[in-house]
Amino acid sequence: MSILTVGTMAFDSIETPYGSVEKVIGGACTYISWAASYWCNEINLVSIIGDDFPEEEVRILQKRGVSVEGLVRVKDKKSFYWSGKYHNDMNNRDTLVTDLNVLAEFDPVLPESYKTSQYIMLGNLTPSVQQSVLNQLVGKPKVVVLDTMNYWMDVALDELYEVLRKVDVLTINDEEARQLSGERSLVKAANKIHSFGPKFLIIKKGEHGALLFHDGQIFFAPGLPVPEVIDPTGAGDSFAGGLIGYLARTGDISFNNMKTAIIYGSTMASYCVENFSLNRLKTLKHEEIQSRLNQFRDLSSFETRELPPIQN
Amino acid sequence: MSILTVGTMAFDSIETPYGSVEKVIGGACTYISWAASYWCNEINLVSIIGDDFPEEEVRILQKRGVSVEGLVRVKDKKSFYWSGKYHNDMNNRDTLVTDLNVLAEFDPVLPESYKTSQYIMLGNLTPSVQQSVLNQLVGKPKVVVLDTMNYWMDVALDELYEVLRKVDVLTINDEEARQLSGERSLVKAANKIHSFGPKFLIIKKGEHGALLFHDGQIFFAPGLPVPEVIDPTGAGDSFAGGLIGYLARTGDISFNNMKTAIIYGSTMASYCVENFSLNRLKTLKHEEIQSRLNQFRDLSSFETRELPPIQN
Repeated sequence: MSILTVGTMAFDSIETPYGSVEKVIGGACTYISWAASYWCNEINLVSIIGDDFPEEEVRILQKRGVSVEGLVRVKDKKSFYWSGKYHNDMNNRDTLVTDLNVLAEFDPVLPESYKTSQYIMLGNLTPSVQQSVLNQLVGKPKVVVLDTMNYWMDVALDELYEVLRKVDVLTINDEEARQLSGERSLVKAANKIHSFGPKFLIIKKGEHGALLFHDGQIFFAPGLPVPEVIDPTGAGDSFAGGLIGYLARTGDISFNNMKTAIIYGSTMASYCVENFSLNRLKTLKHEEIQSRLNQFRDLSSFETRELPPIQN
Repeated sequence: MSILTVGTMAFDSIETPYGSVEKVIGGACTYISWAASYWCNEINLVSIIGDDFPEEEVRILQKRGVSVEGLVRVKDKKSFYWSGKYHNDMNNRDTLVTDLNVLAEFDPVLPESYKTSQYIMLGNLTPSVQQSVLNQLVGKPKVVVLDTMNYWMDVALDELYEVLRKVDVLTINDEEARQLSGERSLVKAANKIHSFGPKFLIIKKGEHGALLFHDGQIFFAPGLPVPEVIDPTGAGDSFAGGLIGYLARTGDISFNNMKTAIIYGSTMASYCVENFSLNRLKTLKHEEIQSRLNQFRDLSSFETRELPPIQN
């Protein structure tokens, strides 16, 4: 089953306590496509780049089953550029530079062959661009996953509400869930957000893991403690890529399978942070993915025994 | 098997977004004893109170199997008093008042019958007081659990190091683990803290759950998302009480059983926050404890299936 992924392809300059890199490959769509490519080799990519983006990076994606018919390369313009610096705790970062460049004119047009894609992953973008992609689909896809952020809640809330009506799975962080719902309790926030459209709400909490809410049920995916987080950039998008990839591979969007998909997403995120840019994601082996999945299972499983009550 | 619990018994005045209470019953030792009393009815309590502390509160603890031979009541003095205000997110609070009162002269003397207690739970106190309790024990107890906080790392680090050498299980939060070890990564922090003495490190992360580190192995206990946290005061001590109570009940301090003990601790903490003071902890039924344990199990369990690798 084919995946449609829409989002940025970019250059990032990143500073973390472990070092810094200049103008390395980044962007939501890049991370999503790489992470998803371990489960699915029919990925329809929609993005925009300038003529500074290396052709080799596009070619290796194609070799992994990614169609780039929907990738627009703009002559004499630069690719989207982001630069940021992480604080010591790696949970917070400051944006130093955001140069939209070609992204300012991103108005995605789906090639005919993309329009019946069944697994839709909309990376964090202007809600009206996300909406426009959904409007071009023919028929109802199996699942629509949307990523967004607090910025769009501040500046384009009405457009965000509009697109959310067509979304099955929303991925945001805990503060964003509170902002979007106006509720302090995440349980109440989830109920309210379900009423906006998304039947599934995934709350990403970084090193603290992720929560899945659906129809009164809750799943908690742990964060895997790792010896060193080198660079958290792209972790959320790697998570999304693993999630949509696994859903497409299994064709099952039940609550039960969504749990496992989240663990696969967490697995990709946990590898992503081990190195800068896509360096680690590009070299993964299937055995490594499976062995980390087992680590996640061991991490949160425990035994219960029946204990007769004592007399007080 | 008998538990020894040492810590404060106090009055608290608390303000949360849900309301406020004045001079209600609190204190680490009170929460620990109540939580542990659901698994064990041989609890040796060591604490100090003034003559303002209600006799009725002492009497109901005795009825639950708590020995108060080690409880000192000081005439014409007041009990320890703490007052605090929680922020909107409930994860942070400001201390408004700390009146040590009788706590300033707390120099615990263990009654003879306490000295062979096997399950030792040292609530957050001056490290030298915690040390003095351990020095009075006869023979080696089965397990020593110690709770502490950043304040003692700031003002009594050498004494803290000293007592840690005799501790099996240390419970602190993530920032405190980083401070104590000087390591950013919790995995590295755990290794370093193991070398100070504690073979088990429990990192409490409030709503984000808890981590257990032991001998290169990790367990992640999820935080149970609840519709409303009314008052987080005492959650950490209820966790400790559930933990030591379950360990004493099962007599098993293996890594595997420690995992389950942490889930029982989380269960008690999740009930504690449902109401002010000990109101909820005092009314628990065994069926409620067991049913929440099942909720914790469901919360983090997922299915795996073997997927053949795809061809890229």
